[in-house]
Amino acid sequence: MKPEIRLGMVGYKFMGKAHSHAYRDVGMFFDMDAKVTMRAICGRDEEAVKQAAERLAWESYETDYMALIKRDDIDVIDVNAPSNAHKDIVLAAARAGKHVLCEKPLALNLEDAREMLQVVKEAGVKHGICFNYRFLPSIQLAKQIIEEGRLGEIHHYRAVYLQDWLVDPDFPLAWRLQKEVAGSGSHGDLNAHCIDLAHYLIGEFDQVIGVNRTFVKQRPIPASMNGLTAQASSEYGDVTVDDATVFLAQFANGAIGSFEATRFASGWKNGNLFEINGSKGSIRFNLERLNELEVFFRDDPPHLQGYRTIMVTEGVHPYVANWWPPGHTIGYEHGFVHLAYEFMQAIANDKPFSPDFEDGVRCQEVLEAVDRSIVERRWVSVAEV
Amino acid sequence: MKPEIRLGMVGYKFMGKAHSHAYRDVGMFFDMDAKVTMRAICGRDEEAVKQAAERLAWESYETDYMALIKRDDIDVIDVNAPSNAHKDIVLAAARAGKHVLCEKPLALNLEDAREMLQVVKEAGVKHGICFNYRFLPSIQLAKQIIEEGRLGEIHHYRAVYLQDWLVDPDFPLAWRLQKEVAGSGSHGDLNAHCIDLAHYLIGEFDQVIGVNRTFVKQRPIPASMNGLTAQASSEYGDVTVDDATVFLAQFANGAIGSFEATRFASGWKNGNLFEINGSKGSIRFNLERLNELEVFFRDDPPHLQGYRTIMVTEGVHPYVANWWPPGHTIGYEHGFVHLAYEFMQAIANDKPFSPDFEDGVRCQEVLEAVDRSIVERRWVSVAEV
Amino acid sequence: MKPEIRLGMVGYKFMGKAHSHAYRDVGMFFDMDAKVTMRAICGRDEEAVKQAAERLAWESYETDYMALIKRDDIDVIDVNAPSNAHKDIVLAAARAGKHVLCEKPLALNLEDAREMLQVVKEAGVKHGICFNYRFLPSIQLAKQIIEEGRLGEIHHYRAVYLQDWLVDPDFPLAWRLQKEVAGSGSHGDLNAHCIDLAHYLIGEFDQVIGVNRTFVKQRPIPASMNGLTAQASSEYGDVTVDDATVFLAQFANGAIGSFEATRFASGWKNGNLFEINGSKGSIRFNLERLNELEVFFRDDPPHLQGYRTIMVTEGVHPYVANWWPPGHTIGYEHGFVHLAYEFMQAIANDKPFSPDFEDGVRCQEVLEAVDRSIVERRWVSVAEV
Amino acid sequence: MKPEIRLGMVGYKFMGKAHSHAYRDVGMFFDMDAKVTMRAICGRDEEAVKQAAERLAWESYETDYMALIKRDDIDVIDVNAPSNAHKDIVLAAARAGKHVLCEKPLALNLEDAREMLQVVKEAGVKHGICFNYRFLPSIQLAKQIIEEGRLGEIHHYRAVYLQDWLVDPDFPLAWRLQKEVAGSGSHGDLNAHCIDLAHYLIGEFDQVIGVNRTFVKQRPIPASMNGLTAQASSEYGDVTVDDATVFLAQFANGAIGSFEATRFASGWKNGNLFEINGSKGSIRFNLERLNELEVFFRDDPPHLQGYRTIMVTEGVHPYVANWWPPGHTIGYEHGFVHLAYEFMQAIANDKPFSPDFEDGVRCQEVLEAVDRSIVERRWVSVAEV
Repeated sequence: MKPEIRLGMVGYKFMGKAHSHAYRDVGMFFDMDAKVTMRAICGRDEEAVKQAAERLAWESYETDYMALIKRDDIDVIDVNAPSNAHKDIVLAAARAGKHVLCEKPLALNLEDAREMLQVVKEAGVKHGICFNYRFLPSIQLAKQIIEEGRLGEIHHYRAVYLQDWLVDPDFPLAWRLQKEVAGSGSHGDLNAHCIDLAHYLIGEFDQVIGVNRTFVKQRPIPASMNGLTAQASSEYGDVTVDDATVFLAQFANGAIGSFEATRFASGWKNGNLFEINGSKGSIRFNLERLNELEVFFRDDPPHLQGYRTIMVTEGVHPYVANWWPPGHTIGYEHGFVHLAYEFMQAIANDKPFSPDFEDGVRCQEVLEAVDRSIVERRWVSVAEV
Repeated sequence: MKPEIRLGMVGYKFMGKAHSHAYRDVGMFFDMDAKVTMRAICGRDEEAVKQAAERLAWESYETDYMALIKRDDIDVIDVNAPSNAHKDIVLAAARAGKHVLCEKPLALNLEDAREMLQVVKEAGVKHGICFNYRFLPSIQLAKQIIEEGRLGEIHHYRAVYLQDWLVDPDFPLAWRLQKEVAGSGSHGDLNAHCIDLAHYLIGEFDQVIGVNRTFVKQRPIPASMNGLTAQASSEYGDVTVDDATVFLAQFANGAIGSFEATRFASGWKNGNLFEINGSKGSIRFNLERLNELEVFFRDDPPHLQGYRTIMVTEGVHPYVANWWPPGHTIGYEHGFVHLAYEFMQAIANDKPFSPDFEDGVRCQEVLEAVDRSIVERRWVSVAEV
Repeated sequence: MKPEIRLGMVGYKFMGKAHSHAYRDVGMFFDMDAKVTMRAICGRDEEAVKQAAERLAWESYETDYMALIKRDDIDVIDVNAPSNAHKDIVLAAARAGKHVLCEKPLALNLEDAREMLQVVKEAGVKHGICFNYRFLPSIQLAKQIIEEGRLGEIHHYRAVYLQDWLVDPDFPLAWRLQKEVAGSGSHGDLNAHCIDLAHYLIGEFDQVIGVNRTFVKQRPIPASMNGLTAQASSEYGDVTVDDATVFLAQFANGAIGSFEATRFASGWKNGNLFEINGSKGSIRFNLERLNELEVFFRDDPPHLQGYRTIMVTEGVHPYVANWWPPGHTIGYEHGFVHLAYEFMQAIANDKPFSPDFEDGVRCQEVLEAVDRSIVERRWVSVAEV
Repeated sequence: MKPEIRLGMVGYKFMGKAHSHAYRDVGMFFDMDAKVTMRAICGRDEEAVKQAAERLAWESYETDYMALIKRDDIDVIDVNAPSNAHKDIVLAAARAGKHVLCEKPLALNLEDAREMLQVVKEAGVKHGICFNYRFLPSIQLAKQIIEEGRLGEIHHYRAVYLQDWLVDPDFPLAWRLQKEVAGSGSHGDLNAHCIDLAHYLIGEFDQVIGVNRTFVKQRPIPASMNGLTAQASSEYGDVTVDDATVFLAQFANGAIGSFEATRFASGWKNGNLFEINGSKGSIRFNLERLNELEVFFRDDPPHLQGYRTIMVTEGVHPYVANWWPPGHTIGYEHGFVHLAYEFMQAIANDKPFSPDFEDGVRCQEVLEAVDRSIVERRWVSVAEV
């Protein structure tokens, strides 16, 4: 008989839906060393959380996260409430001996993130952060190619995360646009992903300098909100986060890079793109075409060199054999399924999970160094923060 | 209280997995007018079907499809066993008053398909055929654009379905390569999809002429098989279906077209592509990039005309609002979720479902006209068959 | 001292401009074994040809092609007058001992083409036909890749030549739309290129069957014309050529293929595309991106296989070293420069030139077999015609 | 009778060839208000310049630029010698009353560039700088779209110029890698183009900050060189310019941007790309596909929005009607033909030419501000330099 891993989750909006789907599907496609049960979902609005429980297939619901944490029929707390709630929930959960999986960014600031790391380590629980893009087959393949040495010495890293959902000035003042709830804007939401992928693929940042903009400074206060969408009212409030943040980076390995996160790139919906140039080859990725990876190798015969577009949908590619036959593409949500698989396996086999809170802190350090560089208008070393 | 729709399914390989996933997920993302329960899965190999039931989340299993059909706690029979088993199961299910959803191709030949259509009509049950690609948001958008009159009069239809999994001569003789089980090869498997999409988007075929090839005439007999994959043995058997079939078409509306299905197109994994050219605009689709649709409009300002790539991932696009925020792509399997949604809704509300067995027969007529044109080396009118 | 090759040319519209440019530029970029001089251009309208001579840098002009041919200061006659004039000019030139370079199609019908071939052979002059696309670096590279055996056995050839300049029903009845002048429509103009490339790259056609359409049957008679463009008048005349011709082909090597030429493909300007699938790899080409060639190789490591896009702009690629540094693209007209180089070199060194009138006849045979297949509604063997 | 413009040119390598070609071809494709004659080419190596004169179709040659400038049969001096020679030649030419067209960068430093500007203004001669990419039809179309107000308020500018010809550490120490001859490396050579396009399209830079790298610090001293290519010897010398320079920019209009120039981007040959995001739409350009321009408009119907790829090859597009029919692409060199046309027309009609030395200085100011920001590790205002 397989052991059981009993889940509790705080949050039930966009991320709550993505996580629930992952827990529900993972056992259908992956051989698990444990049986996963979805015990309880938690939110403050009873009517809403009750509906979410039914819709998202949780066995029960709670309206108080402390009640959830105290339940002894729960082993893991998944935290995907708004960012300003992460810390308190994580601390309580860890101290109660629960394993913790937390959405990014870990916290509103680096200090909190470090405290959270310390607490989970002291508690000896498993901890993970939802850098879900790491778990796409194309990203796993990129990692494999780099580890095989096929890019050589890395010279350039170039990343952008381009969206356009704020170009419309009438888009309302959602929680993601309020600093006290979200911590930051496109920087913490989008650059966080870019920074983590750079960490994962080419290593540590040394120094950074950036600039940001809030192009639309006031927006209608929403009458009601649901996930990323919201209905506007006639009152206006201040946007207190960045619409766009661009920064340069010098990496520990000598490479240089540029990063940009914006919600003002007309025409881009979820354009998380990066390119890596090394002495032996290059890699390009675009999240809007997440089943593909483009690679270039300088050791191909000279007359046959060119960027090749790999359809990362073959059985030889990471995770793919668990899904469909070659060429049958997967979507955004599958990254969460893979992440859920790995986190559950880590618990079942008592092995480390990556990315963990260390990675969350590491990402937060870079985010904070960039923010400081913007305020102080100078290069900031990540070691400083 | 919502009524319940109780499902039984025959088949548990590639398609069984895709269908099961759809039934399991559909209620998480769509507002259903019925509650869907997955009562029993059926297959002849008890050990295998038992494991499938557990893995794919069915409440029970059967090893005899007649036993399944006789159960009075089941309302719908989903048929995704190999093609040669479709007819008997469908006839029995319909005669037992069960609604029937059948994988394509409906039958091994047109005569059988017509009989199946007659029986489901006489039985008065709902009937559907799994032309799943109709249910992609991009295809739905293509349909909408055409219905809005944005292409004008249609002149050209150009479709290919390109795969490469048979280029390797050591790939074993799977059931899909045996005429008595599969009915036909790339023609019935892949051209069937292309023909249905043409039917759906631009209407009836008038005349066709084709040519086919079996490039590798003998293949190793498989020691064991699983879905599309198989392990080879040292004995060889005859491939009795086509590796590739290409044909020309004249449509009832005056348009001309070309169609090609092949499993020998090195580099293509699941390349179901088509292009439609009309007097006012054009549409292009590629299944390997199923979240995108390319369109061209002649009434754009002359200096600004160009094929535009629509990311069909906005809330205004069909089905998308039920999934993720803009730009968060979906995969191959989502077409089945949408199909399941529509079929369940048709049952719940006693409304017609499309595509139904009429569409299945219509597709089979074209397939058969092409086959006859190959044998008789002449243009064959679809009305002839 | 280099010998001199003295040119005369009949025709001064679109092709006359392209050829003149090639003769003028070739010596600036290529080491020639002869000095090329542009002696005289010929056309019936004295004012127009006089202006053309000045604009296109010819030393003199003639209004009678026999006068041109009789001049003993001319070695080569370049024929790019409308198609119905090719035969008489070529016969006269060859009989006068002039080398002949003729635009495609060679003649209005196969019989004439064969007579032209016989005459140039008897006359012992150099003969060439302007299948200019052969001379693009990307096409030369495709040829090289095939000759290196990198595609293996050829299974599929898929070619389209897509334009949209006739979609507008008000486009006037230019000479290219009149059978007595142009011979045929999109078939002779565009499929001729596709057929020649197939000949060049994969060899002989065995059997063909096609269908065609004239979507717009009457058009305004032009008040004036210039090359491809024309101004409409208020009278209408019959379009006597095809707007689109699609056909299937069985090749001598066992491959099957489809071909399509149309001037009704909204959104396509000059889309001469083909794809070749072989047992070891594939090639794709698109004339609208003529500096690129896409290739796929099945012997790449399994996890790294993908279509690669070669920028055919490196010094190692054919002809490229004579132009600009890597990545500096060339255009449509450069194919003519390369063709001019090869034809001049063939004369200077008394070596054969390819493609010659044999290739022209070979292409015409396929064109005619397709036309016959359309009339007789059956497969026609190229050997028949 | 048209007036004559008599040209002299200093330099005969890569740029000399491109310019010569432009002068030779321009009259064949454009209606000029003057007759252009190529009087004399100048270089220090007599044998080489003599051959160049013959190859590139100049009537005569000189080995001393002062001799060239003193000739009274010459009206214009075209300067495309290495960058360190620009200043002296330009000053002498202008003081002799010759119109001057100079390659970029204008000078090795800003002080020299400003002096050159002052001298040409005092001399009252026409002056132009060869920012050739402005003259591509696609760039002209981008400019037109912006001027039509179709992008709205500009938020983002993102430019890279990616090449890979220095990735190989054995590539020799060409003059472009020596500071005293070239002034700078990828920054002055490639970012100069990016900066000029940004100036042209969206206006003034306010502040910048950058970082650069010289990845390969020593290279073999070349035994011989020809344009961009060189043969290596066994001795090594120091690379004294940057291999790559990346910088951030804040524009006067409030937009933010990033710029990168590198010769170490494996797989990129001549990848001059930019993207502009505005409140109403976006534009993307890639020099490796210079016949195309991608645009996005937020006022398209919501379900039909997408980046469209305009083939900038229609008669309605800038300069295109002078070349070939729709869809017949042009190459890199055509930008020089258009530039030559505009400069000659400016002289013939005594009208201003743009880009002129003002633009050259403006570009140099940004280059220098970036260089200072690198040294001083801080944001530098362009107004400072």
